[in-house]
Amino acid sequence: MKIALAQLNFHIGNFENNTGKIIDAIRQAKVAGADLVVFAELAVSGYPPRDFLEFHDFIRLCHESIEKISIECRGIAAIVGAPSINKAPEGKNLFNSAWFLHEGSVVSVHHKGLLPNYDVFDEYRYFEPAREFSTVDYKGIRLAITVCEDIWDVGEDLMYTVQPMDVMSGENPDIMINIAASPFDYGHAARRKDVLRRNVLRYGIPIVYVNHTGAQTELLFDGGSMVMASDGRVLNECPYFAEDMLIWDSSDQHQQLRENDHANKYALIHDALVMGIRNYFSKLGFKQAILGLSGGIDSALTLVLACEALGEENVISLLLPSRYSSNHSIDDSLLLLKNLGSPHHILSIEDGFAAMESTLMPHFTDRKPDLTEENIQARLRAVLLMAFSNKFGYILLNTSNKSEAAVGYGTLYGDMCGGISVLGDVYKTEVYKLAEYINRKREIIPKNIISKAPSAELRHDQKDSDSLPEYDMLDPILFEYIEQKKSPAQIISMGFSEDLVRRILKLVNTNEYKRYQSPPILRVSPKAFGMGRRMPIVGKYLS
Amino acid sequence: MKIALAQLNFHIGNFENNTGKIIDAIRQAKVAGADLVVFAELAVSGYPPRDFLEFHDFIRLCHESIEKISIECRGIAAIVGAPSINKAPEGKNLFNSAWFLHEGSVVSVHHKGLLPNYDVFDEYRYFEPAREFSTVDYKGIRLAITVCEDIWDVGEDLMYTVQPMDVMSGENPDIMINIAASPFDYGHAARRKDVLRRNVLRYGIPIVYVNHTGAQTELLFDGGSMVMASDGRVLNECPYFAEDMLIWDSSDQHQQLRENDHANKYALIHDALVMGIRNYFSKLGFKQAILGLSGGIDSALTLVLACEALGEENVISLLLPSRYSSNHSIDDSLLLLKNLGSPHHILSIEDGFAAMESTLMPHFTDRKPDLTEENIQARLRAVLLMAFSNKFGYILLNTSNKSEAAVGYGTLYGDMCGGISVLGDVYKTEVYKLAEYINRKREIIPKNIISKAPSAELRHDQKDSDSLPEYDMLDPILFEYIEQKKSPAQIISMGFSEDLVRRILKLVNTNEYKRYQSPPILRVSPKAFGMGRRMPIVGKYLS
Repeated sequence: MKIALAQLNFHIGNFENNTGKIIDAIRQAKVAGADLVVFAELAVSGYPPRDFLEFHDFIRLCHESIEKISIECRGIAAIVGAPSINKAPEGKNLFNSAWFLHEGSVVSVHHKGLLPNYDVFDEYRYFEPAREFSTVDYKGIRLAITVCEDIWDVGEDLMYTVQPMDVMSGENPDIMINIAASPFDYGHAARRKDVLRRNVLRYGIPIVYVNHTGAQTELLFDGGSMVMASDGRVLNECPYFAEDMLIWDSSDQHQQLRENDHANKYALIHDALVMGIRNYFSKLGFKQAILGLSGGIDSALTLVLACEALGEENVISLLLPSRYSSNHSIDDSLLLLKNLGSPHHILSIEDGFAAMESTLMPHFTDRKPDLTEENIQARLRAVLLMAFSNKFGYILLNTSNKSEAAVGYGTLYGDMCGGISVLGDVYKTEVYKLAEYINRKREIIPKNIISKAPSAELRHDQKDSDSLPEYDMLDPILFEYIEQKKSPAQIISMGFSEDLVRRILKLVNTNEYKRYQSPPILRVSPKAFGMGRRMPIVGKYLS
Repeated sequence: MKIALAQLNFHIGNFENNTGKIIDAIRQAKVAGADLVVFAELAVSGYPPRDFLEFHDFIRLCHESIEKISIECRGIAAIVGAPSINKAPEGKNLFNSAWFLHEGSVVSVHHKGLLPNYDVFDEYRYFEPAREFSTVDYKGIRLAITVCEDIWDVGEDLMYTVQPMDVMSGENPDIMINIAASPFDYGHAARRKDVLRRNVLRYGIPIVYVNHTGAQTELLFDGGSMVMASDGRVLNECPYFAEDMLIWDSSDQHQQLRENDHANKYALIHDALVMGIRNYFSKLGFKQAILGLSGGIDSALTLVLACEALGEENVISLLLPSRYSSNHSIDDSLLLLKNLGSPHHILSIEDGFAAMESTLMPHFTDRKPDLTEENIQARLRAVLLMAFSNKFGYILLNTSNKSEAAVGYGTLYGDMCGGISVLGDVYKTEVYKLAEYINRKREIIPKNIISKAPSAELRHDQKDSDSLPEYDMLDPILFEYIEQKKSPAQIISMGFSEDLVRRILKLVNTNEYKRYQSPPILRVSPKAFGMGRRMPIVGKYLS
């Protein structure tokens, strides 16, 4: 039997687009002689549909799509992800299902049993978990169809009390099919292969795995759809970060056609961020971006990534100097812009700053300059950037990194503005690594931008290190707390000073209020700020 | 047996504070001759602890608190909400539990079976649902102990497949005890009594119900802890929005001591918002607020509520006129300030606006003024407000209402700024009703502020109705879509024009990106923007 794996980039709630893509892929698979074509989890709606799932009208549109798709399934079958109605009097009203469609009708519907409800996942918010699982026979081959998480509970610490494949293995299936919506992080591709391998080895049969590709605001999907043989070898794999279709003849369980290279962490993050920017703009119907180019490494890197995503002519940089900007900030930025061939404007914030100072002076008379005046500069830059955004229809790109976001080293309504945060899940030390990756062939980001000491340039001779420890000290502490969820005692026992650890964790927790109003952040790590990390604002733990 | 109900205002993660309050209440109950004192769900940690629950160190601190509390339970027993560890090899690592403490040790631990995971609730993110339920005997009385949601699945459309009280009723309990963390909305008190009544009537025994009071950022808890007799009569009830302890002698199932008046919707919302502001400031350790007073009704109402919450001397108003401000805006604001006796400053934004215009002019040459210039004014006001906030340590109060937030009628980083949104869950038509309630005894909010046509005053003769339908047309459409989740077809069938409905729903859905960066909103309705409504930003449904 020939099985087509359709790795597609869907758009949440854009039924016309999604159904069209699915139907095109069915036709294409049919031409290629496929017996069955497999699509990702919740393909018809896009993933994650979030609270749209609570609207009956939205579910109705999902089912309209399923009907349209089923009509296309003549001489070919399809497995498509879509919600289905739970008709039992008890439990949530929906299942998260794989629909098996053939000859114009629904052959069977297979509901997801394990509903992820951690980090970025909220599936038990919408869906009832299936408690029964059964295989389906198609053209003499017995298929065990599961949905994403159903095959992921294979670690030491089991999160669920049921294992769908354990139940179905009693029916002696020939092939596992898993439809997924499994978001990218820099360690995900390796983990995914490990999970699939544990499954094929445990159940002794091959697996066909189909994932989403594309970006849905914060969530990035790399794809990596694949066929893995029962001995754990990858027989064929779709490329990362791109739509693709591959066809596997299930009688061939030996020939290894293609497997993605084990890319390095920064290559993966780079590709993910470029796709994240590109899809954010295209799905919102925008073409052009604006950003503030400070002369520092964060905005430089953001600019390079945006130029790759949107075209260098579509990214407009504003250079926004003040009395505290060093000359090299402008020069370095101009060199970078020349390297990229990307447009810019230079606007001084001095007139605005002077006006604000004189407006405020009668009220601030006896007060010395402090963080207030620094924030005013950052906020005036935001006013100018947003003016261009409003006037010309550009989306403002936020350039803050994860280290800054973590400790609140940034101005709310100032440099924290933007439609999307490009580097908000990239620690400062990782920003340098990404810049090195960008420069791997030729110097795009000028050496001077990389080598200078980080500074916000909001007062004379300011350095980040005036307020924060060096980033190669700060970032490991942040990682242990945010990603690893270690206690202060555990982090201190790793050799960091107690004062420093307590000070940093306090900064992280007391700045929750700032992150609450941050733009959405492209997620590239296993624990990003945003929908996957939910903290109280008035909480008093470690603060 | 004498049972004390301790209705307290906890602070998330503030173990010293929470444990101290619990111990004080135990001592007080003991002095009053109580045999048992009951505290709310997750009392030791505060509710909702959110992802703090994923930190082992946080759980360790919960258990330290339980130990300290159990030592106090000599000659008296206590039921206290706290997480407990799931020791089974499968399932999530925690239970949400009621700890029964007596004579210095843990007598039994009762785990929550029904885990709410909708609207503002994320409990399956952290907890394994209990599958077994049993009663406990104390001083010859059999208690059926449940946690919040365990007794709430009593409607037509059952959300869960198990009913803990059905299981325990086989053991013939004498009293139900329910510990809760059940947030306020304007319909909640009535619904809560209905749910408790359905339980006492179904199981034929009285119930002791203990809820939180106080605010945790968005979530407001009214309390309303009570004893209800087996015939559905309220025997005694704690006041709303205040800490309290009441003691019930279980041998008396007849005497009706106290029941809160059935308050009107606007009285409840008023009290909830005042508590919400007060607790947000006190839990963050702040005393003073600042806000922009425009002469319109939203900022006027916010000011009045803030003065009640913090004291009129602790709320600083900025009047921030521009060339487009009408004279009455200043006069009306000054009259309101006089009525309240609250301080203010007047700062013109004209100098700043002129500076921004001249800075931008070379780049905007051939473009006519549009929304850009309106937004610049709103953002300059935010720069000044935030400058006061930074300089003097005030928290900025956001004054946007729910109608504006819904359709995106507001400037991101402008009037959408603030530490907390006071009216973001109050529709404009409800804002007027609240103003009437404020003025019920004397005119605090000047009549002119209430009667003038709503205007943002960002261009000459601007009115809200230039861009939006009248609020008494807009708000019902928003309510049907947001609260009732109706389809466009359903809303149109209620008599609204198709064009209008489609236009409004599109505005709601395309402005998700603005609300993503909005301050947290004090929740007073069953469906507030914020943690309880999770929508895709790049979604294409109805947009």
